[in-house]
Amino acid sequence: LRNIKLTLEYDGTRFLGFQNQRQGRTVQSVLEEALQKLFQKRIKIVASGRTDSGVHAEGQVVNFTVDSKIPLWKIQRGVNRYLPEDVSIVRIEEVSKKFHAQRSAKWKTYEYRVLQSKAPSPLTRNRTYQYYYPLNLAKIRQASKLLQGRKDFRAFEGSGSRRKSAVRTIRKIEVKQQGNLVTFRLESNGFLYRMVRNIVGTLLEIGQGRQNTQELRKAMKLKQREILGPTAPPQGLYLKRVKY
Amino acid sequence: LRNIKLTLEYDGTRFLGFQNQRQGRTVQSVLEEALQKLFQKRIKIVASGRTDSGVHAEGQVVNFTVDSKIPLWKIQRGVNRYLPEDVSIVRIEEVSKKFHAQRSAKWKTYEYRVLQSKAPSPLTRNRTYQYYYPLNLAKIRQASKLLQGRKDFRAFEGSGSRRKSAVRTIRKIEVKQQGNLVTFRLESNGFLYRMVRNIVGTLLEIGQGRQNTQELRKAMKLKQREILGPTAPPQGLYLKRVKY
Repeated sequence: LRNIKLTLEYDGTRFLGFQNQRQGRTVQSVLEEALQKLFQKRIKIVASGRTDSGVHAEGQVVNFTVDSKIPLWKIQRGVNRYLPEDVSIVRIEEVSKKFHAQRSAKWKTYEYRVLQSKAPSPLTRNRTYQYYYPLNLAKIRQASKLLQGRKDFRAFEGSGSRRKSAVRTIRKIEVKQQGNLVTFRLESNGFLYRMVRNIVGTLLEIGQGRQNTQELRKAMKLKQREILGPTAPPQGLYLKRVKY
Repeated sequence: LRNIKLTLEYDGTRFLGFQNQRQGRTVQSVLEEALQKLFQKRIKIVASGRTDSGVHAEGQVVNFTVDSKIPLWKIQRGVNRYLPEDVSIVRIEEVSKKFHAQRSAKWKTYEYRVLQSKAPSPLTRNRTYQYYYPLNLAKIRQASKLLQGRKDFRAFEGSGSRRKSAVRTIRKIEVKQQGNLVTFRLESNGFLYRMVRNIVGTLLEIGQGRQNTQELRKAMKLKQREILGPTAPPQGLYLKRVKY
């Protein structure tokens, strides 16, 4: 039995998220269908984690085991032919039997892209969050320092999630500007449900001057979601990389 | 009567090009419809030039005259509300009566984006030409020097075009690489039908080693399209800017 690791790129716009649901088109469902066509048997994949509807990936990682001798490059080419145009295997590797895309993950990197613009931008719709108000990046960077390190992130957790502890370690939050594009890059040993979008939503409120660092401090201490900014929309979010 | 200049951004994927046709969805048709809804009368626009189906714009320019006192920002906001999400007015100005979006144009800048990749890239499909073969940029830059200046570009003209002369002045061809994205930037006082895509198609053949500078020289001299490379596909092409 071979254990195969795939790195996926997908455009989340037309998917109802990554994980299989009772109904609807998900990344997992189209991938498992394509694998079944190639291997002529049912294949069950494991992913590093799920992504919501509208959220993109440049480096989502999944693995599956299969009893087949088809060479890796032929699996990649074959499955890519069966996949729809909004998802693609960009890398394929054979890994040890112990590798588990979710449990073996050590660090994850997400990117969130905000386009500063007064008029709608057709070319980057579904790829960025188009934000009308001017942003003070110095304030955003200052606030983001409060979120780095090992902390309880319950104030940034979406409702409806299951987990033992809300303690996570964010080891990097970078905020970069290139022209009118502002990019947030977050690296953590794990993210709670909607944590990235909740953090970005709050940092944007701070950058716009509608909230301040004091309120952020208070929300972190009291672990209260309600004090903080809204959840940033999904189309600006990219799962960039999973490190093992 | 006011003369109004609009700068447009559009995603060309779902348009049958810019210019009105007997049938089908064009940028001109959706824009004229939106203008008619706002002004409650038929408005005819003039564009700097047409773009093909699948070709994008970040800076297409059009103008129209109208007898109305609505302030510019209200026209922009109102028309953008009536426009579909794949086209948008990004700038609006009132200009002198003499301004004509096509005849007053002095220089045009096009960009062509090539993504070097072995596997399909879902996030940049419809936005780049995904190119499998490795490219020698030094060879491409060397060949592009032969195309700069005032020359007869008949060898790069698509069939079915009408024009008096095929002489144009290309004052810049820049080739840049950022990661696996190769960007061509061309500036000219005018482009023949499909000229940018034909130039890029040939430069890619040269960069890949399937053609050489000698053949390019010959084609330019003999004005023969047949010697040269294929037309690069539309989805990599962007009308960036029109200078007046």
